[in-house]
Amino acid sequence: MQKIDALIHPRWTIRVEPRVEVEEQLAIAVDGGRIVAVLPIEEAERRFAPAARHDRPGHVALPGFVNAHVHAAMSVFRGLADDLPLERWLRDRIWPAESRWVGPELVADGTRLAIAEMLAGGITCFSDMYYYPDVAGEVVAETGVRAVLGMIALDFPTAWASDADEYIRKGIEVHDRFKGEPLIGTAFAPHAPYSVADATLARIRQLAGELDVPIHTHLHEPAAEVEAALRATGKRPLARLEALGLVTPALIGVHATQLEPAEIELLATAGASVVHCPRSNLKLASGACPVAALLGAGVTVALGTDGAASNNRLDLWAELQTAALLGKLVAADATAVPAGTALAMATINGARALNLADEIGSLVAGKAADMICVDLGDIALQPVLDPLSQLVYSASRHDVTDVWVAGEHLVASRELVRLDLDSIGAAAKRWGQRLRGADGAPQGAD
Amino acid sequence: MQKIDALIHPRWTIRVEPRVEVEEQLAIAVDGGRIVAVLPIEEAERRFAPAARHDRPGHVALPGFVNAHVHAAMSVFRGLADDLPLERWLRDRIWPAESRWVGPELVADGTRLAIAEMLAGGITCFSDMYYYPDVAGEVVAETGVRAVLGMIALDFPTAWASDADEYIRKGIEVHDRFKGEPLIGTAFAPHAPYSVADATLARIRQLAGELDVPIHTHLHEPAAEVEAALRATGKRPLARLEALGLVTPALIGVHATQLEPAEIELLATAGASVVHCPRSNLKLASGACPVAALLGAGVTVALGTDGAASNNRLDLWAELQTAALLGKLVAADATAVPAGTALAMATINGARALNLADEIGSLVAGKAADMICVDLGDIALQPVLDPLSQLVYSASRHDVTDVWVAGEHLVASRELVRLDLDSIGAAAKRWGQRLRGADGAPQGAD
Repeated sequence: MQKIDALIHPRWTIRVEPRVEVEEQLAIAVDGGRIVAVLPIEEAERRFAPAARHDRPGHVALPGFVNAHVHAAMSVFRGLADDLPLERWLRDRIWPAESRWVGPELVADGTRLAIAEMLAGGITCFSDMYYYPDVAGEVVAETGVRAVLGMIALDFPTAWASDADEYIRKGIEVHDRFKGEPLIGTAFAPHAPYSVADATLARIRQLAGELDVPIHTHLHEPAAEVEAALRATGKRPLARLEALGLVTPALIGVHATQLEPAEIELLATAGASVVHCPRSNLKLASGACPVAALLGAGVTVALGTDGAASNNRLDLWAELQTAALLGKLVAADATAVPAGTALAMATINGARALNLADEIGSLVAGKAADMICVDLGDIALQPVLDPLSQLVYSASRHDVTDVWVAGEHLVASRELVRLDLDSIGAAAKRWGQRLRGADGAPQGAD
Repeated sequence: MQKIDALIHPRWTIRVEPRVEVEEQLAIAVDGGRIVAVLPIEEAERRFAPAARHDRPGHVALPGFVNAHVHAAMSVFRGLADDLPLERWLRDRIWPAESRWVGPELVADGTRLAIAEMLAGGITCFSDMYYYPDVAGEVVAETGVRAVLGMIALDFPTAWASDADEYIRKGIEVHDRFKGEPLIGTAFAPHAPYSVADATLARIRQLAGELDVPIHTHLHEPAAEVEAALRATGKRPLARLEALGLVTPALIGVHATQLEPAEIELLATAGASVVHCPRSNLKLASGACPVAALLGAGVTVALGTDGAASNNRLDLWAELQTAALLGKLVAADATAVPAGTALAMATINGARALNLADEIGSLVAGKAADMICVDLGDIALQPVLDPLSQLVYSASRHDVTDVWVAGEHLVASRELVRLDLDSIGAAAKRWGQRLRGADGAPQGAD
């Protein structure tokens, strides 16, 4: 008998690779933070002597969700600005609040709040884009979640840096500081084509190659952005990125609601990825990403929540359901973005976009044990004719009972093991009080 | 001091009428199943001696949700047929399953399952359209929920009736049988213009006037339906209903994804209502109801879940969020269908569509005490800058803690008081086993 750390025995398992399919009565053997085997329970009981055993007789086990685009710290701005178009949302609400409040304290409190919400809902890895990624990285390390820190870059000053040189220098310091952390990666995060100059983008392309990290950027969010770029530069933003050599497998383009057929082909040929944030795109009326067309062309399409200020939840269940539903309307085809595809977008596609597919995104021996169990016992999920359908169309984050990251049991019986919810809630309340003092703040609470 | 049955004291209250706004430190006084007063807590404590007092210090109280279109019994078909277009979904999956299984047992079990899901999620009233409304009515009476039973009519035979005469005769029997039940109403429910002949529709118009009940029908669901009607009759379905005299304040048209500007104007002028079922429309790629345009024209737009076979959840939180989000995309305007409008659609607009606005839909003295409390304490809802925003964009049915219908406390501390979940779950499991035996059933469980 081989001694291992843990054996998880759910009723159903969805490995995601090689296929998104439901299998029954498998067990997942975990040791040293990694998946040792996914195998029939009878065989597991002959081969392994686990230190801990987790029987989940009414549950599905699946890979943890990958939130491929979030501004985690913005969770303290949840509800600050609703029912406004993107430009006014940014100019009248978000930028003033940020210029007054963004600093290490906001980033620490907001990132911790975001991680509590995300972990409880089954997100085991997130790709962040915000100021003070050094502070975010410390919070990530403290909580045990997996993350890719965005080395943000802009061509205008913020509290974090004053010019492109300083953004890039501080970003590389963050990269160096966390490179020994097994659960923390980095990506360059030039904010968007409209907010970053050609010279900065060209430098980021070169540095991303040297450091072997992805380039995570907003791309073609509302139509107005594309039109403004055409007027200002004579090029659509994606064409400009291409001219600068940024359209490569390292590119993670977020939103992509405005794509012409040739642009879809360009992304596919280049091996670039797209992060679809359907609820944010709807809420800001940015448009709808042509998900079925992108997937059909072979583009990796992952899912992101965007920040809580524009969503207003960091809930990948809501995103994958919306992706499956909206994808059918946009394609005018009820067979588009079926349940299994939506689940792949939330897991392995996120891993691929972040260049982490060797490590996470599916339940395969050798990968890190980043996984979740979901209870299909709620009365609202009955009868369970098809567990995959139930997950994608009926379940929600409240059905997640267990979350492991690199084998560590971070959510057990729906409780966050390592996080102090009282202090996280108290910090959120403090931010609520401060923000309600601000101009234009909504009627409020706390 | 006036003796009353109960005083509910939430932190926040949204009365919905005269406006959807958040007020603090009100209390709701309830007696004999009705709201006696909504007033400041200090005044309530001076005036009333309640037999029961419910303090909800982190909660919002609001009117119970009205699910204005559901096929409740179809909840046993949840997950039977996903990712299929409407026509194949009906012809290959739903109709064969229905022709084999529909009968009093399925309707009783399915309706009970649906009511458990709906009540737990804050739905206090639903408008049903299915076979055996007599059986559904018995289950409604047993559970304490409020419902409008559809007197379904078709021009083809089913297990419930063999021709239009029998449908109508049996419908009127249902009307007569339940007319003494204070929580049960009826509506004629001709299935759809394409499945009901002119003569039947004309007769229903006349009878609906005599009985003073609404006419609840599917209307302009996918584009193909409208095109087929044009080919077959030379008229779009709404024009045909108008020619038959059915476009009146009694008309409740469900789906309405295909509407020309003149049709919106016709519905507005006639005082007809529309039930928007956004998740069903997306899932079946039927199209998108022009909600902002309808509301702008003055049409009452309510919300419906549709049946669990096409959704796959009877969750009005998911519908109101999707309505708010999708409404912005369809209108290309991020200010369209704001949070307060979405909440009105889920409450008072449902009451208006069902001709029950004098009885339910808002927290107003004299109306029935149909209301819910929602806990805003979850970490995923922090900070509470704006309770209304939190409800519409961040909360979910799992945050509902209490539900009252006509003053009866049917959900307390998230538990269903009157329903036996074990027997409802066992019945659902039996249906799962039977349906999995059917052709084309999905991989399964239970």
